[in-house]
Amino acid sequence: MTISKPAPSSADIGVTGMGVMGRNLARNLARHEHRVAIHNRTASKTEDVMDQFGDEGTFVPSESLEDFVSSLTPPRVAIVMVQAGAATDAVIDDLADLLDEGDIIVDAGNALFTDTRRREAALKERGLHFVGCGVSGGEEGALWGPSIMPGGSADSYKRLGPMLESISAHVDGEPCCTHVGEDGAGHFVKMVHNGIEYADMQVIGEAYDLLRRGLGLTPAEISEIFAEWNKGDLDSYLMEVSTEVLRQVDAETGKPLVDIIVDQAGQKGTGMWTVQTALDLAVPVTGIGEATFARGLSSAVVQRDAAADFEGIADEWNIADRDAFIEDVRQALYASKIIAYSQGFNEIQAAATEYGWDISLADMARIWRDGCIIRARFLGDVTKAYDKNPELPLLLADEYFYNAVKTALPHWRRVVSLAALHGVPAPVFSSSLSYYDGVRADRLPAALIQGQRDYFGAHTYKRVDKEGTFHTLWATEERGEVES
Amino acid sequence: MTISKPAPSSADIGVTGMGVMGRNLARNLARHEHRVAIHNRTASKTEDVMDQFGDEGTFVPSESLEDFVSSLTPPRVAIVMVQAGAATDAVIDDLADLLDEGDIIVDAGNALFTDTRRREAALKERGLHFVGCGVSGGEEGALWGPSIMPGGSADSYKRLGPMLESISAHVDGEPCCTHVGEDGAGHFVKMVHNGIEYADMQVIGEAYDLLRRGLGLTPAEISEIFAEWNKGDLDSYLMEVSTEVLRQVDAETGKPLVDIIVDQAGQKGTGMWTVQTALDLAVPVTGIGEATFARGLSSAVVQRDAAADFEGIADEWNIADRDAFIEDVRQALYASKIIAYSQGFNEIQAAATEYGWDISLADMARIWRDGCIIRARFLGDVTKAYDKNPELPLLLADEYFYNAVKTALPHWRRVVSLAALHGVPAPVFSSSLSYYDGVRADRLPAALIQGQRDYFGAHTYKRVDKEGTFHTLWATEERGEVES
Repeated sequence: MTISKPAPSSADIGVTGMGVMGRNLARNLARHEHRVAIHNRTASKTEDVMDQFGDEGTFVPSESLEDFVSSLTPPRVAIVMVQAGAATDAVIDDLADLLDEGDIIVDAGNALFTDTRRREAALKERGLHFVGCGVSGGEEGALWGPSIMPGGSADSYKRLGPMLESISAHVDGEPCCTHVGEDGAGHFVKMVHNGIEYADMQVIGEAYDLLRRGLGLTPAEISEIFAEWNKGDLDSYLMEVSTEVLRQVDAETGKPLVDIIVDQAGQKGTGMWTVQTALDLAVPVTGIGEATFARGLSSAVVQRDAAADFEGIADEWNIADRDAFIEDVRQALYASKIIAYSQGFNEIQAAATEYGWDISLADMARIWRDGCIIRARFLGDVTKAYDKNPELPLLLADEYFYNAVKTALPHWRRVVSLAALHGVPAPVFSSSLSYYDGVRADRLPAALIQGQRDYFGAHTYKRVDKEGTFHTLWATEERGEVES
Repeated sequence: MTISKPAPSSADIGVTGMGVMGRNLARNLARHEHRVAIHNRTASKTEDVMDQFGDEGTFVPSESLEDFVSSLTPPRVAIVMVQAGAATDAVIDDLADLLDEGDIIVDAGNALFTDTRRREAALKERGLHFVGCGVSGGEEGALWGPSIMPGGSADSYKRLGPMLESISAHVDGEPCCTHVGEDGAGHFVKMVHNGIEYADMQVIGEAYDLLRRGLGLTPAEISEIFAEWNKGDLDSYLMEVSTEVLRQVDAETGKPLVDIIVDQAGQKGTGMWTVQTALDLAVPVTGIGEATFARGLSSAVVQRDAAADFEGIADEWNIADRDAFIEDVRQALYASKIIAYSQGFNEIQAAATEYGWDISLADMARIWRDGCIIRARFLGDVTKAYDKNPELPLLLADEYFYNAVKTALPHWRRVVSLAALHGVPAPVFSSSLSYYDGVRADRLPAALIQGQRDYFGAHTYKRVDKEGTFHTLWATEERGEVES
């Protein structure tokens, strides 16, 4: 179809950016009986959407951004779904010039939360609401019900929230969408969601690798084991996905597809942001960190080539009790997953304190129960944990999860030990175990590090037995201590 | 003394910022017969330096920045040694207004290299040279001979270099100072130096913790073991420091000082920067990453309190062969150290490519052999490795280091395994081993991750058997593959 000028105020909400995510969000809105204005820089894309999906609901297409804005009913709600970075900035600038006080711009892409904070502050000065809004679930999620994490003002949520809640996934009638917190809180939480996703994928990868190398199983056999695991504590979308990928046979070669795929993992940056931000906040997210580095390592072709002939000098696998090993690996996966989530939630907690966001961790787990990539039965348990104690200092300290980790411990320790002895990289399994043993440690060698720092840099230290800051005069004969 | 107006062009070089680092650099310069202009925002500090150290050489004190600048012989060289960030920016701005074309400003603090690049570009437009200059060695190093890592233009090094080389540490007559590369290269390399330092300190901490828990040794006994190690491959300043710290007895309690020091490690940001930057460059620096997170974990008081009663459910230590275990730990330390350096040098390599710096890795190792905190016999071997092959893709791939790691492997695997089974956190030991097993792996589970990403996000994958980018239509009945 060709696009004619739309009637003013003929749409309830608009989406600009008709890439697959924007298009699917618009279709989802239309299916839920919202009148949806749609727009794309290149109008032919908008026409395509009308041609293919125009009969799914009430779409109000526009050729120009001006028409798009005038088709929206005030206070206007315009969702921007274009590439993060400069493209987003440009569209927001153009929109802001056309909108009126009280209108709402929603950035539904994966913007870095500090950019979102900057944009929100600038637009607030112009009387506009800016909502950085995380959307997870991929293309299918956007179309059929994603998990939605809007930030921005509580005020804007009154207008925007009901529409977003209507198109989100639902669990027991509850929408997988809530107001996360002010300004960049929504994009922050989406970022951590993605970071956790990296860890979640990596621990499944480590389990697969260990089962394959340890027991010599085929991908199809591991797919069946994963399908079994997917009925228990590990029941999750990513486990289901892995089951599907591992049972896929390449039509061309007849081999398992996973053996045909180049083993270099790509990344689009949100895992990296999660780790970088955690470092700023001094929150150890070792699971997400190792998972992100593992992707980098897999793609470090020059280094891998240089190391291709390195010897392992490792033990040969010789596992007597196949089922026991499978259970060991399952428990290691589950415990490592709990650690990764515990760390991720700590990052959200730290950011909420740093940026003055009032974030309910229970609500975050609640809206992740369905619609998003990390959706899992597990998140129902996380929700319960934070419902019981909103100030829980560690997810790990919740009785349910602590008991799960306690049960897993002997298995987990065995798996990390076996991986080390047999030359299988298990960076997240082992790093998570180190975290567990570190956080529970009565004394850490950090005391020696403080002593080193005081020795070479006079950085001072604190004493366990009294207040104050101290320095040892290492260079003097008596090496006396002074208060500093 | 009180400060009178200095004669014009009466100094060869100047230092502003009379904190302990700035003062010691100035004294070092004066001792090497450079006439040193000195200045501090609060003049009393400058007076103190004159009163205490005025007879060590030719100092030219100034009360005002104007006098300071006029006391310098053109082309002027002014070293700024004030707090990183806003304070540095302010002093640089003030200096730039007073200087003439061709003059040189040296920032000898720990600035983030991106700030240095920004400042260099801005000052270049005004005809000024800006040199971001890493200085390592702490207070004593600054005074008696640090390792110096100046960036900035090659042109500026002609004037600046000889003076810096004269005050740096020397090994076999060679100065521990060289022109690192353009603009921010000096601060970049200093940042990675500090990141490596974090890993170096942490692996010593892990060795100490394992020896203590595994064998029930006292800090004094471990000090003796470290003193022994310090005669071999591990001969290093940080090992020497650790020996000293561990043998220190607290005068007040009679206990080992390391047991009196609060076990929460502080950090000033360079380790964090190293990891954040490595993530930007997609270089896995897992050793530095885990070391940085370990400091964060040690200071996460709320989380540690919450986990204080967590059970370990770990094996009891019962080591039959004490000496064998000590050797296991030594080898694990050495191998993990090699990995941390290998990763750090890869980060420098990646940055050189990214920013167009012509950095000699051999020279970097060479100028770290003495003067700096990570100085060690080890760095002589690193120098040899990069002298032999400047394009070495992995330090680990050098014959000397590869053989060292190969020798260490059985020990290292045993230690990581024992740490996991006995509940001792050894994050860098185990993460480094995972890295080694990852980089040498024929196939990584990253292939499964690529499959997952293609399934839920249509991110596509590559095939091992032909060129192109592919996507499986997972949702269709035949789940066929398409080229995309």
